Amino acid sequence: MQRLFNSRVAHLATVDEEGRPHIVPIVFAIQKDTLYFAVDEKPKKTRNLQRLKNIAANPAVSVLADYYEDDWSKLWWVRADGTARVITDKEEAERATELLAGKYEQHRRAKPAGPVVAIHLDRVTGWSGA
Amino acid sequence: MQRLFNSRVAHLATVDEEGRPHIVPIVFAIQKDTLYFAVDEKPKKTRNLQRLKNIAANPAVSVLADYYEDDWSKLWWVRADGTARVITDKEEAERATELLAGKYEQHRRAKPAGPVVAIHLDRVTGWSGA
Repeated sequence: MQRLFNSRVAHLATVDEEGRPHIVPIVFAIQKDTLYFAVDEKPKKTRNLQRLKNIAANPAVSVLADYYEDDWSKLWWVRADGTARVITDKEEAERATELLAGKYEQHRRAKPAGPVVAIHLDRVTGWSGA
Repeated sequence: MQRLFNSRVAHLATVDEEGRPHIVPIVFAIQKDTLYFAVDEKPKKTRNLQRLKNIAANPAVSVLADYYEDDWSKLWWVRADGTARVITDKEEAERATELLAGKYEQHRRAKPAGPVVAIHLDRVTGWSGA
């Protein structure tokens, strides 16, 4: 969990209405048992964003942070299976945006254009090659 | 596509029978429009491996290779949506194993214990921050 917490990037898998998976890299911040990520795309485009369409149809998501190098004894990954929702409460969105700004300079410079998504981390599993 | 081809690690998303996504890091090799990865787990354990159970129930998968650094103008990702199947033909499995051995020293030293999966790349999309 600490490795996921400290990772600068993770990978988010969602599922569309027809049961097909979709995967994107995300930058994120974690507080307690919730992971937050913000959508950077403009609101106009956001409506058609696959990850948001998928979450609306099916809130089950999976987030993976991992480390790779060619020495496989150094590999590790952490996976969090969770339940996602787009934050609609303004205050909650602001707190999440501040949390992201605390971790990423880019989020301090410019507020993300799109909504913030909260993922409740239901189950965290991990593996390490060492 | 060249960036995916050259990546040392990628992330595989599959979907279980209940529509929940599952995501794992994979090492892989690509030939033409097919991506191959081998399962390293022992055959006894393999039967219960989530990614293989998922592929058997739902062959739709998504593979992502990406690059992260804190300078976001350098970011890129490549996603391949595809159709997966466990290779049952012995000769095809051997060719795929050789392909993996050509890319990874670890696969040259020891043959993977589990089966090889072939993913037909149906659609490749990408994004770059530059």
